[in-house]
Amino acid sequence: MLKYLKKMRKKRGFPPGSLNELEISKLRSEATLIHYDNDTVEMTSLTDLADVSFPKSGVNWLQIKGLADIDMIKKVADIFHFHPLLVEDIFNSDQRSRLEEFNEGIVVFLKHFQLESQKDQLESEQLTIALVNNVVITFQDSRKNIFQILEERIQKNKGRIRKMAADYLFYALIDIIIDDCFIVLGMIDDLIEDLESELIKNPQSETLQKIYHLKREIIVLRRSVWHLRELVVALNRDQNEFMTDSTQVYLKDIYDHAIQIVDIVETFRDMISNMLEMYLTSISNKMNEVMKTLTIFAAIFIPLTFLAGVYGMNFRFLPELEWKWSYPLWWFITILIGISMIFYFKKKKWF
Amino acid sequence: MLKYLKKMRKKRGFPPGSLNELEISKLRSEATLIHYDNDTVEMTSLTDLADVSFPKSGVNWLQIKGLADIDMIKKVADIFHFHPLLVEDIFNSDQRSRLEEFNEGIVVFLKHFQLESQKDQLESEQLTIALVNNVVITFQDSRKNIFQILEERIQKNKGRIRKMAADYLFYALIDIIIDDCFIVLGMIDDLIEDLESELIKNPQSETLQKIYHLKREIIVLRRSVWHLRELVVALNRDQNEFMTDSTQVYLKDIYDHAIQIVDIVETFRDMISNMLEMYLTSISNKMNEVMKTLTIFAAIFIPLTFLAGVYGMNFRFLPELEWKWSYPLWWFITILIGISMIFYFKKKKWF
Amino acid sequence: MLKYLKKMRKKRGFPPGSLNELEISKLRSEATLIHYDNDTVEMTSLTDLADVSFPKSGVNWLQIKGLADIDMIKKVADIFHFHPLLVEDIFNSDQRSRLEEFNEGIVVFLKHFQLESQKDQLESEQLTIALVNNVVITFQDSRKNIFQILEERIQKNKGRIRKMAADYLFYALIDIIIDDCFIVLGMIDDLIEDLESELIKNPQSETLQKIYHLKREIIVLRRSVWHLRELVVALNRDQNEFMTDSTQVYLKDIYDHAIQIVDIVETFRDMISNMLEMYLTSISNKMNEVMKTLTIFAAIFIPLTFLAGVYGMNFRFLPELEWKWSYPLWWFITILIGISMIFYFKKKKWF
Amino acid sequence: MLKYLKKMRKKRGFPPGSLNELEISKLRSEATLIHYDNDTVEMTSLTDLADVSFPKSGVNWLQIKGLADIDMIKKVADIFHFHPLLVEDIFNSDQRSRLEEFNEGIVVFLKHFQLESQKDQLESEQLTIALVNNVVITFQDSRKNIFQILEERIQKNKGRIRKMAADYLFYALIDIIIDDCFIVLGMIDDLIEDLESELIKNPQSETLQKIYHLKREIIVLRRSVWHLRELVVALNRDQNEFMTDSTQVYLKDIYDHAIQIVDIVETFRDMISNMLEMYLTSISNKMNEVMKTLTIFAAIFIPLTFLAGVYGMNFRFLPELEWKWSYPLWWFITILIGISMIFYFKKKKWF
Amino acid sequence: MLKYLKKMRKKRGFPPGSLNELEISKLRSEATLIHYDNDTVEMTSLTDLADVSFPKSGVNWLQIKGLADIDMIKKVADIFHFHPLLVEDIFNSDQRSRLEEFNEGIVVFLKHFQLESQKDQLESEQLTIALVNNVVITFQDSRKNIFQILEERIQKNKGRIRKMAADYLFYALIDIIIDDCFIVLGMIDDLIEDLESELIKNPQSETLQKIYHLKREIIVLRRSVWHLRELVVALNRDQNEFMTDSTQVYLKDIYDHAIQIVDIVETFRDMISNMLEMYLTSISNKMNEVMKTLTIFAAIFIPLTFLAGVYGMNFRFLPELEWKWSYPLWWFITILIGISMIFYFKKKKWF
Repeated sequence: MLKYLKKMRKKRGFPPGSLNELEISKLRSEATLIHYDNDTVEMTSLTDLADVSFPKSGVNWLQIKGLADIDMIKKVADIFHFHPLLVEDIFNSDQRSRLEEFNEGIVVFLKHFQLESQKDQLESEQLTIALVNNVVITFQDSRKNIFQILEERIQKNKGRIRKMAADYLFYALIDIIIDDCFIVLGMIDDLIEDLESELIKNPQSETLQKIYHLKREIIVLRRSVWHLRELVVALNRDQNEFMTDSTQVYLKDIYDHAIQIVDIVETFRDMISNMLEMYLTSISNKMNEVMKTLTIFAAIFIPLTFLAGVYGMNFRFLPELEWKWSYPLWWFITILIGISMIFYFKKKKWF
Repeated sequence: MLKYLKKMRKKRGFPPGSLNELEISKLRSEATLIHYDNDTVEMTSLTDLADVSFPKSGVNWLQIKGLADIDMIKKVADIFHFHPLLVEDIFNSDQRSRLEEFNEGIVVFLKHFQLESQKDQLESEQLTIALVNNVVITFQDSRKNIFQILEERIQKNKGRIRKMAADYLFYALIDIIIDDCFIVLGMIDDLIEDLESELIKNPQSETLQKIYHLKREIIVLRRSVWHLRELVVALNRDQNEFMTDSTQVYLKDIYDHAIQIVDIVETFRDMISNMLEMYLTSISNKMNEVMKTLTIFAAIFIPLTFLAGVYGMNFRFLPELEWKWSYPLWWFITILIGISMIFYFKKKKWF
Repeated sequence: MLKYLKKMRKKRGFPPGSLNELEISKLRSEATLIHYDNDTVEMTSLTDLADVSFPKSGVNWLQIKGLADIDMIKKVADIFHFHPLLVEDIFNSDQRSRLEEFNEGIVVFLKHFQLESQKDQLESEQLTIALVNNVVITFQDSRKNIFQILEERIQKNKGRIRKMAADYLFYALIDIIIDDCFIVLGMIDDLIEDLESELIKNPQSETLQKIYHLKREIIVLRRSVWHLRELVVALNRDQNEFMTDSTQVYLKDIYDHAIQIVDIVETFRDMISNMLEMYLTSISNKMNEVMKTLTIFAAIFIPLTFLAGVYGMNFRFLPELEWKWSYPLWWFITILIGISMIFYFKKKKWF
Repeated sequence: MLKYLKKMRKKRGFPPGSLNELEISKLRSEATLIHYDNDTVEMTSLTDLADVSFPKSGVNWLQIKGLADIDMIKKVADIFHFHPLLVEDIFNSDQRSRLEEFNEGIVVFLKHFQLESQKDQLESEQLTIALVNNVVITFQDSRKNIFQILEERIQKNKGRIRKMAADYLFYALIDIIIDDCFIVLGMIDDLIEDLESELIKNPQSETLQKIYHLKREIIVLRRSVWHLRELVVALNRDQNEFMTDSTQVYLKDIYDHAIQIVDIVETFRDMISNMLEMYLTSISNKMNEVMKTLTIFAAIFIPLTFLAGVYGMNFRFLPELEWKWSYPLWWFITILIGISMIFYFKKKKWF
Repeated sequence: MLKYLKKMRKKRGFPPGSLNELEISKLRSEATLIHYDNDTVEMTSLTDLADVSFPKSGVNWLQIKGLADIDMIKKVADIFHFHPLLVEDIFNSDQRSRLEEFNEGIVVFLKHFQLESQKDQLESEQLTIALVNNVVITFQDSRKNIFQILEERIQKNKGRIRKMAADYLFYALIDIIIDDCFIVLGMIDDLIEDLESELIKNPQSETLQKIYHLKREIIVLRRSVWHLRELVVALNRDQNEFMTDSTQVYLKDIYDHAIQIVDIVETFRDMISNMLEMYLTSISNKMNEVMKTLTIFAAIFIPLTFLAGVYGMNFRFLPELEWKWSYPLWWFITILIGISMIFYFKKKKWF
């Protein structure tokens, strides 16, 4: 969140659609073009986008990794007639997940989530995926091979991807991002389970810190995921124009997945609230325990100490002091009082 | 929840509609065909689905129990023109309850709930029910005879089932699953009542554990049940196409039941929140009780012990020590202080 | 709630619309027909419904009290062409309040609420009211004279009821049930006020029990009342068909009442939450009070007891013991410490 | 709330639209007719409404103060063709704020709020304002001069009121009631501010009582204000029929005010919840403070008292008692323990 | 909030649209006209608005700073045919953010937020921006150069502003206000982060005050921001009439920003609730800690003090006193009891 806000603060007053240098990535841009149809696959590393031609038949997948080379991205934008504001949004790494339509195609802004397993830190990277005619363009500001598994499926002709049009590729890319979302949710689920068993067995103040931290992550994740759902709903609503009939049924599938993700995140939220309540109640329970222990000790020994104090007094005329059996008698009374106290607390079910 | 997430994690990157082996059940598939009309009932155990014919008249009910035999399920899918994604969803045991339409028929994915009475553990099994023309197909991944009572009704010609078309059978199957949902709710209701009386009579820390556990189950159940409601709403909306007029009135009936289930689950949720509040408040009350006990003991005996300490001092010139009546006088003052303390706390309504 | 769930549990698998004997009331059915128009009123006790004729002119009100005589109810259902599922719902005593339309008329299922003043126990009874042409039929499973006041109005020709059609009678019946709902709300309001003054004057643990109990009742009542509102909304929406124009304005009146009931119940809910918060806070306040008392006593006397202990030591060389004024000096110091302690706590506003 | 419920309880079973005597005000009715146009103003006290004529030109404002004279109100109702149910609602002093249309005009039921500054008690009075052709009728059950300022504006021809039609007067009346609502909100705002500063400076248990009381008032006010908003929305929606074009822009203005009122009340609600949380947390903080004080005293003096007790023992063979420097040594150790304890708690930041 | 309410209180009963003197600013009005087209920029300070002419070509931006000069504002209103109510709203400094359309143009009322970094005090100023044909008018009641950066862009011909029509200027003004909103959110984000680290490291009662204060600001900000969102939605809906096609895409951009602002504020709210919970729980944790310390001290030394008291008694026949090894034995037993106590609490994980 902070990241985005900091950027906005520096951006103030710049003309809209201007590419303020502060936002620009340090990572050198690399462009790769994958062209395939049912029979052939061709993968080309592009250095200059000026003389690239996109064959009209088959599917073209243009991958841009790293966003430092503004000219290259502007070149792509020119070729496919992107609006300047849309170009600005590609660089803006904290876009809300959403779908934008323009004359010739559609663009989606998506977040790819990852959970750093060491630090339990949720990290997100913005991906921009555009579909224009038979060309799919993906922008990302890292070298991560998020879509490697899809490249392999294209290379090895697994599944139906080689037989389908560009809109199927567009769908398949979104599908992978959603699948990765499930992986993150699975990891959070593990975290929740660990925390739950920690909570039941041995709650400590670090447990609270962890729950608090997790809740914070889920607050952020939740908003993100709601926008993802809206994106997918929009994609299903606008299916007729840019999506072929055969792909539409797959869009319904990711719609189902998106709803499931929202569901799971909501359930996580409920569970964590549940855990916090549980934690608070268990603290109260423990405090009760502590108080009871104190009260039992105090209530038993304070009267007895008083009784010992009585016969420690130095009055000259204190007849009991002279009696022969007063000491054993004193012990007898003392123990009697002690035992009856214990019975009293037992009856009150204090231990 | 976890189960589904684990599957998704392993599935990452597989082409959509592919049957990843990891998901496949170990339970050998068994197919049974029940054909009936007003006059005859015929039940056949099928070993090979290749040469099965489904009579055009009467109703055909094809039961598939166990999902290990992928070829058999694929065969069924081929016969009735299921989409590959739909086939994938049959194997996917953690689908959200929903209704899918395709050209020739409709499919519902439903959860059959059971409450293991020993462990108070809510268990769910996915059922897939398809209706294509005069054929109803049910898929389940266990040998449980969930629909046995319906088979009997068909065999013994009870009610109107033998007189009605396939869509009535489709309805009757859903009706049974919803009836079983009420049974689960009934058992949860018993649990809540037990917990409530436990809470009022003798709240313990295990009571809290139980409430917490129950709340967690209801969080999961609630989402499930909302989707069930949506399914039933969709079924009522789409009634015109695949449902005959005479069955539509029955669909309204299960609509009412689905709403009632949602209502009951929401009420359960409110009640459990109510119980948790009650528990927390009763802990505070108890702590108050404990603190009062401690304070009363301490406030009575600490001053008295001080008084005893005074006359235990060894000052050479301590005139009271020499007086004749100082010991009885001391007792008199001590008891007076004690009694006035008791009166003070009585007045403050501390006991 | 439990009642309904228990029934559902036993009903499992019975064909829909079948009248499972378990649900059937033990109360012998009694049928009464009141026929009236502007000039005449006629009241007939019916023993056999076979040869009853309902005059086409005027209004017919058929009252069925007690639901044990299934044949009689089935007879009524036959005469007015009720669907079997509708007949089942008449017997089913825990229907959600709702409106059902069929070809020739409309049926409403309503709950009549009563608050047992002794036990503060909310009780509800299901009423079914049907309107078919100029006949209004009421079903109830008790001998309570809920509508007696209406019978009197008809007998004595009070208000406009004798001048109006059957739909006005239909309205008037619902109006009485809603009026009774206000009576229940009034009693709950009294309970809330009592609890509030109890809470402010002298909160006890039974107060908590009462609040908890009341909250539980309101959770149940609230759901019921929402459905009532929906029923009345549906009645206003569907007014054109079965309701004459002159009755429609009255329907708007009960619509206003239904909204008011929902409003009041929501306000009750807020108030009870408010009370629970208040209770919890007052417990915390009291605990604070108790702790302060303890701390003041302990902080004053523990140092003094220590001081007494010092001069109770038996060291041979303890010079103060020999001084002449050490005992009065000791008292002086002791009292000084005590008083300064008291000032310290006074300054801290602890008492 | 109670007031309304009590009335409903007594009303049970009366024919709808009947004027049950119990509801009728004790306050003698007074009728005043103000007729004005751009040039003239005329104010007449009416004793008998039988032969009143309402000039067709200009604007007529008929004020009815006090509702005891049923015949007079019925007379008005007859002249303007009010429905009996509408007449009933005029007497019913706890109507929900709403708008009713009838053939010839519209009626609004509104609540006029006042905050008794002495008792901090929110009081409301129902006002009924009807608009029929060029006549505006206001009903109120008190002698309060709520609209005096408007009468003056008419008399002195301030603003545009004399130039406008009856619908502008209708608007101006509602506007004054809404303005008074802002005054009440302003007073509540002062109360909240006082409570907040009281909360921060010196929270006491009366502070809690006040917050609780205020929250209760706002619960009631909130519902009222929501209905006011609905009324104003309805007025804007139905503007075309009874409202002239020139008045419509003013209706938008009160629409804005109504939304602002709802906003402010919602903000008040949030603030009071905030204050309650704050109060609870500050109690916990204080309790913590008290407990720390107790613990510090106890932890310092209890070990020292023990040490004094040791050398108060009367063992014959207790070598330290005979040593020459044991008493100063004992003091040295005692003070050392005391100081190290103080350091320990300092380090733990307990004081 | 208070400010607005105070004004309303004084305004009561004034004719709508009247400019009650109490509301009027003390700040002398200054008018500046900036006229520009693609080639020229002209900036004129206006003293008398009577003979101002607005060129029909190019864009005119009329800035009014300070609202003391009612005649000048009325003059502007006359030129552009503003409704009197609209003029009133310009002076009214606590308008809800909203969009108003009139025959010839549109007006937006907006809040410009600033966070006083010294006092952490959220401050808002109302801005009114009107668009009529090729004229944009901005009203503000301060001398702040909110739009200076835009003036520079016009002067220096940066971005596309000089090439676009007046509606683009209208958009650019709103865009700057929204950008400033992000700056405020960024500062609040910093505050939240500071508070969070303070909370984790060393929570104090001032931390609570700060959280409470921040929550209050966000309650106010939240309402404001929701209205901003509605304004922007309305602007997108009504785009066709007053907005050229080329500006519409920019309106979608500020729509996205407005949604993001609402999102961020909602997330802030969740985070602060989260922090309050965290604070409360950490207080409970600490109290637990304190109680344990007390209990450990008391439970160890109270029995030992009792034991010392026993042998401080002065009974004549107390055999242990005479034994030779009773003193070392006593120490042995005492230390044994002490150590076993410590082990007991260690086992209970109390320290």
